Amino acid sequence: MVKSIEWAGEKVRILDQSRLPHEVVYIDCCDYSMVADAIKTLKIRGAPAIGIAAAMGVALSAQDIKAASFEEFTASLKPVIDTMLSTRPTAVNIRWAMDRLKALLLKNRHQGVETLKKMLVDEAKAILEEDITANKAIGRWGAEFIKDGATVLTHCNAGALATGGYGTATAPILVAREQGKEVQVIADETRPVLQGARLTTWELMQTGVPVTLITDNSAGALMKKGVIDLCIVGTDRTAGNGDVANKIGTYSVAVLAKENNIPFYVAAPLSSIDFSIPSGEEIPIEQRPAEEVTHIYGHPVAPEGVRVINMAFDVTPARYISAIITEKGVFKPGDLKKLTLKGVNLPELRLKP
Amino acid sequence: MVKSIEWAGEKVRILDQSRLPHEVVYIDCCDYSMVADAIKTLKIRGAPAIGIAAAMGVALSAQDIKAASFEEFTASLKPVIDTMLSTRPTAVNIRWAMDRLKALLLKNRHQGVETLKKMLVDEAKAILEEDITANKAIGRWGAEFIKDGATVLTHCNAGALATGGYGTATAPILVAREQGKEVQVIADETRPVLQGARLTTWELMQTGVPVTLITDNSAGALMKKGVIDLCIVGTDRTAGNGDVANKIGTYSVAVLAKENNIPFYVAAPLSSIDFSIPSGEEIPIEQRPAEEVTHIYGHPVAPEGVRVINMAFDVTPARYISAIITEKGVFKPGDLKKLTLKGVNLPELRLKP
Repeated sequence: MVKSIEWAGEKVRILDQSRLPHEVVYIDCCDYSMVADAIKTLKIRGAPAIGIAAAMGVALSAQDIKAASFEEFTASLKPVIDTMLSTRPTAVNIRWAMDRLKALLLKNRHQGVETLKKMLVDEAKAILEEDITANKAIGRWGAEFIKDGATVLTHCNAGALATGGYGTATAPILVAREQGKEVQVIADETRPVLQGARLTTWELMQTGVPVTLITDNSAGALMKKGVIDLCIVGTDRTAGNGDVANKIGTYSVAVLAKENNIPFYVAAPLSSIDFSIPSGEEIPIEQRPAEEVTHIYGHPVAPEGVRVINMAFDVTPARYISAIITEKGVFKPGDLKKLTLKGVNLPELRLKP
Repeated sequence: MVKSIEWAGEKVRILDQSRLPHEVVYIDCCDYSMVADAIKTLKIRGAPAIGIAAAMGVALSAQDIKAASFEEFTASLKPVIDTMLSTRPTAVNIRWAMDRLKALLLKNRHQGVETLKKMLVDEAKAILEEDITANKAIGRWGAEFIKDGATVLTHCNAGALATGGYGTATAPILVAREQGKEVQVIADETRPVLQGARLTTWELMQTGVPVTLITDNSAGALMKKGVIDLCIVGTDRTAGNGDVANKIGTYSVAVLAKENNIPFYVAAPLSSIDFSIPSGEEIPIEQRPAEEVTHIYGHPVAPEGVRVINMAFDVTPARYISAIITEKGVFKPGDLKKLTLKGVNLPELRLKP
């Protein structure tokens, strides 16, 4: 399994995804600002992965803090946490990870500073391990919805690289194949940063899953031809009502799937569901530099000075989503909020294939 | 006005669109095989422009033929015409232009060979001039459907560069602006060959039309935001029932427009309508090299050896098309075939804004 990130003692080791598939290069981040920079410049990306990275960055930074009290310690950590929160506005996982670390500290405020430092490291590692476990559960639930011989379209990269490992959107595909089903993938290249072309094809080729690359423009035509049986994508943030913010172009895939009566699934670990916001309209959408559109690998592909709109994400309303695949089961988008209710009957709420 | 092609005496002069927007370089084609190569390698592209180029290529080649009879002359021309017909399978304009030249020759079979040579040159030039005239008429009819302040989305390039001049999809925009309406354009970059990023933005910037470049993935999100008022695209071949084959991704734009209640227009000179085929299902779709997807300006953007599907065009069923804008007026797709009827009442058949 491809490792996107790991805790390497005094360092956070990150696979530099901006250089894939041409070079497999690991970066050893020695301080939190290197981690923040890696997140900002898409060396590590994918909602779950950047949550893990942010947590590890905070844990790393904590080791160097000289503090005599809990208050001094957390005061020193605050700018680190704020830096992490500012790196990518759309994905909720960074906030989720930061909240988790803050809650851990608060709960253990009477422990000594050295104990807290160790706890932060353990928690960051736990976030990574839990992510992989959640992804495998997503895989088992999602695989029930994949028939033998199916062709799955995915958009952007929600594979092992986007997570602690195993992936979200790719997990059901991997499990289905472990179950002996013939499953193949069609990968949208996903302009502007080409995560589909560069990353999804690469990691699936590594694991032996048959994968075919297409331009984003081809997804609709292939759906109309009947080539695609289902779509599975990831999510950067899912609102309480089941609206999903994911890589720009996801909305288009969802509309095309609906028009062609093709099921459209979103693989979402619970950490990416933001129950604090009622709808996708309130998810902040990151605007990224025009150069991502006007240049490819530094080469200009448009006239100098052209105006550009470069939204990194879009929102797919819940009505286009057949189901959300979580580690707790597969649910109708409208049922997500029931997961937060006490005593909810999960087996009853789960969608059956 | 940008000239994509002109008859330059012993040569056909072609603006090399593969080098735009970075370099403005003209190629002087001295024989028909240079013209055929320019068409195949997308140095000249766009359905109307390649029809003109093919006609000029044949006229050029005719000048060198030594023939004593009509039969000898046309026998020498046949491989030239066949070469032109094989360059691009989807666009109907090449066949239309070849049929026109063949009909001209047949009608004048009793003329001397030297006269026929001159006639071919005049006809090729006439095809160019008539194309510009048709485009301006498309502009006048189409402009009636563009309100002051409108934002028009276009896909690929159906501007001056794709035609003899003035463009098809861009013509209504240019006329609307001449009429004093504020109109701006949002241009899809149009992967894989980026004609929107490279060509549409460039030629609109040349003429002072405000234009904003987006990735193909952004069109849907902008429609949902209410930013786009209407779509106008070109066509490579329109079937008798109003189905339209155009650059890959056009179908997606049409579906997204329908979903968002945005009018979707196709600008189609009559030369691009193929009344011989009843539906879009019968339009041959050109498959192009995988390298167009895996490489951008020679730079690899995907793992070596990845499988690729690269269809250059897709078919948009007539039901997604609000209207077809021709040089004879604006019509419902389903009414196109009535244009071939004798005594058709055009003013009655035309759609009003």
